[in-house]
Amino acid sequence: MRVSTFLLSTVKETPSDAEIISHQLMLRAGMVRKIAAGIYTWLPLGLRVMRKVENIVREEMNRAGAQEILMPAVQPAELWQESGRWEEYGPELLRLRDRHGRDFCFGPTHEEIITELVRREIKSYRQLPANFYQVQTKFRDEIRPRFGVMRAREFVMKDAYSFHISQASLQQTYDIMFDAYKCIFSRIGLEFCAVEAHGGVIGGGNVSHEFHVLADSGEDAIASCSQCDYAANVDLAISGKADEPRSASDKPMSVVETPDQHTIESLSQFLKIDPAQTIKTLLVKGVDDIVALVIRGDHELNVIKAERLPRVQKPLSFATAEEVQRATGCEPGSIGPVGLKVPVIADTSAAQLSNFVCGANEEGKHLQNVHWGRDATKPKVADIRNVVQGDPCPRCAGVLNSRRGIEVGHVFQLGTKYSESMGASVLDESGEAVAMSMGCYGIGVSRVVAAAIEQSHDENGIIWPGPIAPFDLCLVPIGINKSAAIAEASEKLYQELRDANIDVLFDDRNERPGVMFADMDLVGIPHRLVLGERGLKNGVVEYKSRREKATSELSLSEVVNRMRQHLNT
Amino acid sequence: MRVSTFLLSTVKETPSDAEIISHQLMLRAGMVRKIAAGIYTWLPLGLRVMRKVENIVREEMNRAGAQEILMPAVQPAELWQESGRWEEYGPELLRLRDRHGRDFCFGPTHEEIITELVRREIKSYRQLPANFYQVQTKFRDEIRPRFGVMRAREFVMKDAYSFHISQASLQQTYDIMFDAYKCIFSRIGLEFCAVEAHGGVIGGGNVSHEFHVLADSGEDAIASCSQCDYAANVDLAISGKADEPRSASDKPMSVVETPDQHTIESLSQFLKIDPAQTIKTLLVKGVDDIVALVIRGDHELNVIKAERLPRVQKPLSFATAEEVQRATGCEPGSIGPVGLKVPVIADTSAAQLSNFVCGANEEGKHLQNVHWGRDATKPKVADIRNVVQGDPCPRCAGVLNSRRGIEVGHVFQLGTKYSESMGASVLDESGEAVAMSMGCYGIGVSRVVAAAIEQSHDENGIIWPGPIAPFDLCLVPIGINKSAAIAEASEKLYQELRDANIDVLFDDRNERPGVMFADMDLVGIPHRLVLGERGLKNGVVEYKSRREKATSELSLSEVVNRMRQHLNT
Repeated sequence: MRVSTFLLSTVKETPSDAEIISHQLMLRAGMVRKIAAGIYTWLPLGLRVMRKVENIVREEMNRAGAQEILMPAVQPAELWQESGRWEEYGPELLRLRDRHGRDFCFGPTHEEIITELVRREIKSYRQLPANFYQVQTKFRDEIRPRFGVMRAREFVMKDAYSFHISQASLQQTYDIMFDAYKCIFSRIGLEFCAVEAHGGVIGGGNVSHEFHVLADSGEDAIASCSQCDYAANVDLAISGKADEPRSASDKPMSVVETPDQHTIESLSQFLKIDPAQTIKTLLVKGVDDIVALVIRGDHELNVIKAERLPRVQKPLSFATAEEVQRATGCEPGSIGPVGLKVPVIADTSAAQLSNFVCGANEEGKHLQNVHWGRDATKPKVADIRNVVQGDPCPRCAGVLNSRRGIEVGHVFQLGTKYSESMGASVLDESGEAVAMSMGCYGIGVSRVVAAAIEQSHDENGIIWPGPIAPFDLCLVPIGINKSAAIAEASEKLYQELRDANIDVLFDDRNERPGVMFADMDLVGIPHRLVLGERGLKNGVVEYKSRREKATSELSLSEVVNRMRQHLNT
Repeated sequence: MRVSTFLLSTVKETPSDAEIISHQLMLRAGMVRKIAAGIYTWLPLGLRVMRKVENIVREEMNRAGAQEILMPAVQPAELWQESGRWEEYGPELLRLRDRHGRDFCFGPTHEEIITELVRREIKSYRQLPANFYQVQTKFRDEIRPRFGVMRAREFVMKDAYSFHISQASLQQTYDIMFDAYKCIFSRIGLEFCAVEAHGGVIGGGNVSHEFHVLADSGEDAIASCSQCDYAANVDLAISGKADEPRSASDKPMSVVETPDQHTIESLSQFLKIDPAQTIKTLLVKGVDDIVALVIRGDHELNVIKAERLPRVQKPLSFATAEEVQRATGCEPGSIGPVGLKVPVIADTSAAQLSNFVCGANEEGKHLQNVHWGRDATKPKVADIRNVVQGDPCPRCAGVLNSRRGIEVGHVFQLGTKYSESMGASVLDESGEAVAMSMGCYGIGVSRVVAAAIEQSHDENGIIWPGPIAPFDLCLVPIGINKSAAIAEASEKLYQELRDANIDVLFDDRNERPGVMFADMDLVGIPHRLVLGERGLKNGVVEYKSRREKATSELSLSEVVNRMRQHLNT
């Protein structure tokens, strides 16, 4: 491609309304342009990248045995009413009426449409498993669209839906899709992480993994193991090890005066102890009565985990001062498990403490050298806190590190949620009607483009992973309009590179070298060849990788082969 | 692809709500399924065909120098208000409101969006010409969607828009795009016709051609030359030749009594003459006064052409009985040009008559052997009638034939309609701001699929042109589950065909031969190989082309090469 016949719309200034780096660089490089809030046009440069992502996704979906289809953007309300989501889905669902006054929506997802299709076309277990995907434009009416295509209202997504006669078959396809996702993000050239999204401990229709592109600017905090491939959203990562041994109790419990010490911080300073040697006792509303949740002083309660406890009311709400008074006989701030008359659930790490400090259920006093089972009733144990950096990995001997990620993919075992509400069943081997189990699998195709930039850029612009770069290589001649020799030699080299099937951008604009170099760096083309007067005389061309500062000289006679080698590795 | 892992959803019965053959066959072959009126899901089989169309379109657009972009489906009302179309466009424009109450539409076309883009990105004549295209989903809220994807509400379209500093540059790109369209439809393997859509005689911003796939079931009537490539919509085709000589007047004009003869049919029977030797004189409202339009008795007035006459009021309306009385002194039915006091405009063919019969402007009387210039004032001459089968071609010595077509593409010189209303200008060489000239170029990608079926099918199903067939070839083994030899040999052949890069559908279902043959014929795969027990013993496989009845035998050792040859030709 010649720059003279290509819309290279680079901009020097950083647009003021772009908050994150990928948004800034996509605007500056001329990849997208905003049409309205959260609605963009993809310019030629941006679309080239998105299409490359799309192609990799498509190839791997086909390889995984998924069949490509194309479902409509405009979906009738009736199907959403059947599944119950017409009511459930909030204002993010863009609802619309046709000229006859019939209700439709611009689909943000396609579970209803695919379930309607499959319940009509698939009647027997013999036709299962079946897996369908599409690459299609969706709309979510975000209240505050921002960050460019990272959180746009209109976006391109690959969504797949699989159908099964059994949970075992669903798990099998889920595993295949999981591997396909790993393959897709590896092929694109991204550093990524597959994250357990619902703890991975709940069976049935809720197993789910998110795929995150790792980037310091990511919105999501991820806990990932230093040794194995365990990773989970920080909110859901398993904290502590259930089988950790507890040290012996070597000191008797005693009361200590702690006037006005109501926080862990002040208490530990006052007593000159590690906050990790203290516990916090939180009283929350239970299904029947008040429940005490105990965590270590240096830890934080994880609301999502606490709400999963059967005895705890959902949504989580703390006991009132009155309820605390009634249950403990003291104010909040001095509560402890010793002699407490309500059920106690302790976090794994808190339950593993010996000789700890806790409130004495008496204003201005704490207890020290407390031991579970001796001084306080042995509590029920559960994982109810946030993981912290350095926590042990629940799967291996490694420790958990905290990283940040951008969610670009999600695989999910839906179970029979849609097939039951919408009556999608097949006959099994014995002729019995069985609701199909379903899986769904999404990749935010347009989002991947932005995430790749968040992960890989420098002060000069984007640094594309080779497989999704808009062009493999740029050819920059110096003084093309001044020197016939340069013009001729660069045209010849351009032709040779194209003949070698290299996707080359030829900067034939006759701009100043600095302008051309800055543009090529900004748009992030992985390899650059510069052809100048002096080089031409010596039969060499200057090569530079976008990722490196150094340049090197390559002989003109060898450069095409060398570039081909570069691109194949 | 194996049928066992592919959603081959064929149906025996012809769906009752499908009126046209392409709709019937697309449903029966399992290419699409209706979700709501005019809204369809494309199943794997249908999508394979549409993608092949899309790829050919994309390759030829790129070759023509157009740059691919992707504009949003959801478009803000503001831009449509700028162009004036928010008001102009009727209820076919699907209007919608987002959660903040802002107005948008689901784009049926993208002139506004592209003009907004280009006015921001392109500032100088040096960046012109520029040509952008996309392949994208559109929505037109048809009042009565029908005929399946032929006239769907949601559909896939390729739309391109070009921008120019001058009409000459527009014409140049228009010609390139015209040729690209011819190339696209030829490559797809369609019999088609490029039709002058606005007469091709009006300069400036109105030159336009439609591309029609020829099919007896087509909605549009086309007049096309038997010898050259002139073709036009029947409504707009040029009728008659201006320079045809007129035979001499050898008889004097005389009055003939014609009691109660008010139609051309009865008059010609009464006088025993050819209707082509009579004329009709129609009085219509003019810009100032009444105007007489004269056409030959056997011809029909073309309203569109008549309305283009500067003296004639638009929309065309006939003179009232009172106005006729005042202008001629008689009733309609006896009017003629002799002695008429109003301006007379005669159709080319009527003006070339000698010795013709016309009304005498007196009830119950006609004139015969009338001669223009002798008996009646020589009229102004214009093309104001519909062409008829056998009319002379306006370009060559051929004659016009009437054919039927399905419009699948349209190229259009828009001129400055949008660039002026939306202020899209560039600086020209002298630094002056000039409104850009625009062209637009559409192809109904999803419609092409249906049109191809209308053109090519038989009683057994679809007959695809090779380049867009869902599969190149089907391999049908007989008794795959009964004979290990058949199973092994067909698996081997399947693998060899795939290795030869042939897109093969392997019917591994173990159905009865009749069922498999019927399915493969219905879905229209161009080439069929059947492997049976007897053939295998003799080392042969049966070959049949979808277009032919006859089968032939090919040696198993040669069949892959033979198929490769077939597919390359």
